Amino acid sequence: MTFELPAVPDLDDAALSARLQHLIDGKTKPLGALGRLEALAVRLGCILGTDVPSLTAPQMVVCAGDHGLAARGVSAYPSDVTWQMVENFLAGGAAVSVLARQHGLALTVVDCGVRHDFAPRDGLLIRKVAAGTADASVEPAMTAEQCRTAIANGMALLRDLPGNTVLLGEMGIGNSSAAAMLLARIADQDIDACTGAGTGLDAAGRAHKRMVLRQVLERHADATAPLDALAALGGFEIATLVGVVLQAAHERRVIVLDGFIASAAVLVAQALRPQVVQRCVAAHESVEPGHRLLLNVLGLEPLLRLDLRLGEGSGAALAWPLLESACRILSEMASFESAGVSKQDKS
Amino acid sequence: MTFELPAVPDLDDAALSARLQHLIDGKTKPLGALGRLEALAVRLGCILGTDVPSLTAPQMVVCAGDHGLAARGVSAYPSDVTWQMVENFLAGGAAVSVLARQHGLALTVVDCGVRHDFAPRDGLLIRKVAAGTADASVEPAMTAEQCRTAIANGMALLRDLPGNTVLLGEMGIGNSSAAAMLLARIADQDIDACTGAGTGLDAAGRAHKRMVLRQVLERHADATAPLDALAALGGFEIATLVGVVLQAAHERRVIVLDGFIASAAVLVAQALRPQVVQRCVAAHESVEPGHRLLLNVLGLEPLLRLDLRLGEGSGAALAWPLLESACRILSEMASFESAGVSKQDKS
Repeated sequence: MTFELPAVPDLDDAALSARLQHLIDGKTKPLGALGRLEALAVRLGCILGTDVPSLTAPQMVVCAGDHGLAARGVSAYPSDVTWQMVENFLAGGAAVSVLARQHGLALTVVDCGVRHDFAPRDGLLIRKVAAGTADASVEPAMTAEQCRTAIANGMALLRDLPGNTVLLGEMGIGNSSAAAMLLARIADQDIDACTGAGTGLDAAGRAHKRMVLRQVLERHADATAPLDALAALGGFEIATLVGVVLQAAHERRVIVLDGFIASAAVLVAQALRPQVVQRCVAAHESVEPGHRLLLNVLGLEPLLRLDLRLGEGSGAALAWPLLESACRILSEMASFESAGVSKQDKS
Repeated sequence: MTFELPAVPDLDDAALSARLQHLIDGKTKPLGALGRLEALAVRLGCILGTDVPSLTAPQMVVCAGDHGLAARGVSAYPSDVTWQMVENFLAGGAAVSVLARQHGLALTVVDCGVRHDFAPRDGLLIRKVAAGTADASVEPAMTAEQCRTAIANGMALLRDLPGNTVLLGEMGIGNSSAAAMLLARIADQDIDACTGAGTGLDAAGRAHKRMVLRQVLERHADATAPLDALAALGGFEIATLVGVVLQAAHERRVIVLDGFIASAAVLVAQALRPQVVQRCVAAHESVEPGHRLLLNVLGLEPLLRLDLRLGEGSGAALAWPLLESACRILSEMASFESAGVSKQDKS
């Protein structure tokens, strides 16, 4: 297949950034009194290239896939939960379904490679590369061709979605292992520091998971380039998200990260196109220990710290109203001049 | 005037709390994976006495008042900003106006004692005890009678508002000084640790503020009982909020704290009726240093840490969607059984 990664230019936003900060400083509040909401407003303005940023038709994209490595006992849940949760997303009963509905986020669920045949329906995109990845403890999780297909799928599906904002979600039993290995390989971190309880392993389970992941990394020691690492260690849902992120960044959409796995897709995309991170907002920091490490590598400060560890896009949805608030501060708040409010004493 | 503080009984919620946690544990997510949102859902259920809590007709009550102590140079802004900001709240241009509109919160602004005559209009309640408090560096800020009147005003106005939830807001140039002194006196803290930059004092301004507040506390050394401390050191907007909080707690409404000043009103209410805090949710932790101290004294963990220091109720409004999410998790999420999702491996 023909395959070309899209360009993601530097936003080069010094003048716009200064104009946005000046506008915020003129609003009826003490300088800086809205704290991190002010920095968020500046960032959203810079991403969208305007001093009146407005978030239109926000898209929650939940990519799902199964992992051959799950057979090695790296998750507390059986692989069947992946397809069962996809059904739950579509039926409206999962956390991300509830939260997307609360906030008016369009929810698209993508079968990127689930080991199950879904009946077609509204809100479900079938972009299945294969019925689950290969077992990465034996061979690369994906062939190079499969990995490129998944990325291309993500780029194409995002291109067809409206709006200027995408929120990243995922589902895949075993995918905190894939995320941990991608973080370890791409950011050169020790795998133990990248590995946590996932959906709820106990201490013995975590020790086993760490041992397995260390062996997988050793087996694929030569997979050091971002696309090679993604193919060897990743998953179909992560590779599809990499495509979503690259295309969204290319189109200058706002990209809202969720937890550890969605953030790992951004890490891969950023390794391929370093300016991707300029378009990103970190919704939250999960209790999965690799997530803090990963956000530090990306240089992103999370908006929420609510001890979440669910994924699905749930944290991105929870942070969403803060992004809307940041835009409204810019567009709806009065200035000292317009409201006739006295400024700070100069004494 | 006749004046009786309302009863605030212990919620005694062990059975309900266990039932709520059991319901949450049955939802389609790993145990505990929604982190602090789960504890919030349990708390809201316990406050409202139901396992299907629903927040109805949320009321943002912004109490405003002027402070005689402002003449001592304890604020970066002139006192006129109090009435100017009240006009801004009502015109819809202030941060709290914008955020209340975003989230469908009914906004009521209360003139509890502003040094200005407002034209009557929708959304404004005139409950003016006097045109600003006395200068607490010279005499008690309020007489005992004024203080009781303000509390009774708060109780009465809350009684007339619909719904089962109140969000606390305030405006008053100089009121971070009042809050700092109340914290120091009621929680027996050193005044320096309770005192911050307020709306934006520089280092010299903060040093001056600390010196003034220490002198005021010494002058009113005998004002140790909660109502005596409130009268000597507080303000009309804080005393009115104390009434709002006591009445809301009595009616078993959810009380959403905002920043340092609104939280100081809760501290006074809790000193009068210790079970008040069971009905409270801390929206955020501001950068005003006394706020963290105060929340620790109350034993409340804030939902947001966004470096806010604006007051008005802005932080309460920003946290609001999280309360709604917590309720929706309980009422809308599927259970493992209803969704046909496999539970954790028992291996």
